[in-house]
Amino acid sequence: MLLYTSLRAPNPRRVNMFLAEKGIDNLERVHLDLNAGEHRDAAYLAKSPLAKVPALQLDDGRVLTETRAICTYLEGLVPEPNLMGTDATERAFIEMADRRVEWTILLGVATSIRHSHPGLASLEQPQFPAFGQSQADKLKANLHVFDTMLESQTWMAGERFTIADITAYCALEFARGLMKFRPADLGYQALQAWRERVFERPSGQVQ
Amino acid sequence: MLLYTSLRAPNPRRVNMFLAEKGIDNLERVHLDLNAGEHRDAAYLAKSPLAKVPALQLDDGRVLTETRAICTYLEGLVPEPNLMGTDATERAFIEMADRRVEWTILLGVATSIRHSHPGLASLEQPQFPAFGQSQADKLKANLHVFDTMLESQTWMAGERFTIADITAYCALEFARGLMKFRPADLGYQALQAWRERVFERPSGQVQ
Repeated sequence: MLLYTSLRAPNPRRVNMFLAEKGIDNLERVHLDLNAGEHRDAAYLAKSPLAKVPALQLDDGRVLTETRAICTYLEGLVPEPNLMGTDATERAFIEMADRRVEWTILLGVATSIRHSHPGLASLEQPQFPAFGQSQADKLKANLHVFDTMLESQTWMAGERFTIADITAYCALEFARGLMKFRPADLGYQALQAWRERVFERPSGQVQ
Repeated sequence: MLLYTSLRAPNPRRVNMFLAEKGIDNLERVHLDLNAGEHRDAAYLAKSPLAKVPALQLDDGRVLTETRAICTYLEGLVPEPNLMGTDATERAFIEMADRRVEWTILLGVATSIRHSHPGLASLEQPQFPAFGQSQADKLKANLHVFDTMLESQTWMAGERFTIADITAYCALEFARGLMKFRPADLGYQALQAWRERVFERPSGQVQ
């Protein structure tokens, strides 16, 4: 298999962290330079028609894109430790937690940064800085839901570490780097404590 | 079980269409008036803390939110006809197709409409009409990827009808209603023909 990936972007990091939790360390990688537009080259578009990174090329030549779909495939390949649920009911509740994180935290962080940060101007044209700021404000308000939840449970989907923690961590670490944002700055102590728990895992260091 | 839902919004329709394809017709429903803000009442927030509709309350009292997570649960309950994949590999490829539709078509339609349509002003504050217009333009350009794909395959995920077709249909029907938009208007004939194939299914009439 061959993983097309890139440095510093949150979605490639999600897959890398998922691989680290699974103990898969022998995957061949191709690094794309997003700022140079390598994900829009014709050769890459033939693999990933919407120009999305990461993408996983399987041994039979088929290419999987979409971070969470790549993780679903890897979970089937290496079932333990389980990160996405062991039956349909648990898979549904973990998917709910992961989607809440993805559509609220990751989308909030990504739109805030893409529409306001000069470093992302090559990836987002036109930028709408006022829209970006409003999304940052909404994100910061919505984080209280996750902070309150983490006052009574250890991880995003309950009492064990799952893919939802990976998604949230990669989103918030991206915000820490480019928005200089820490949950504790807004008084979100439970969310900050959760972040430190993830940071202490070996996979928390994976870029 | 009890389904919290609302009329005219695309995500509740996705679940209703999924239920119709499964032949589940005995689900009790509570209809929320989004324009009146019923999804932000304290009683509903206790069930769906991010104020999202739909939500499925299980017989044991637990509440599932997030459209696709609700579908994952229902697929476990009523496995046939299969709409989300029969093993991890097929699940991954259908999830990829569904996510491409969701993040490109549904998100494009939703942000375009929410930021530009006066009827959605109560749900999206502040609105950024110029941002909405730019998203509509990007959506219309990105649809060519799906149109090209449908020139050589019958359904969004390949040669059988899946959840990805439900997501795309509900998104494009929402755009038809509020943006007066038809794929054929832009020359997307394969996408229009696919839309007619879905429309002819009994589930295509479900609101």
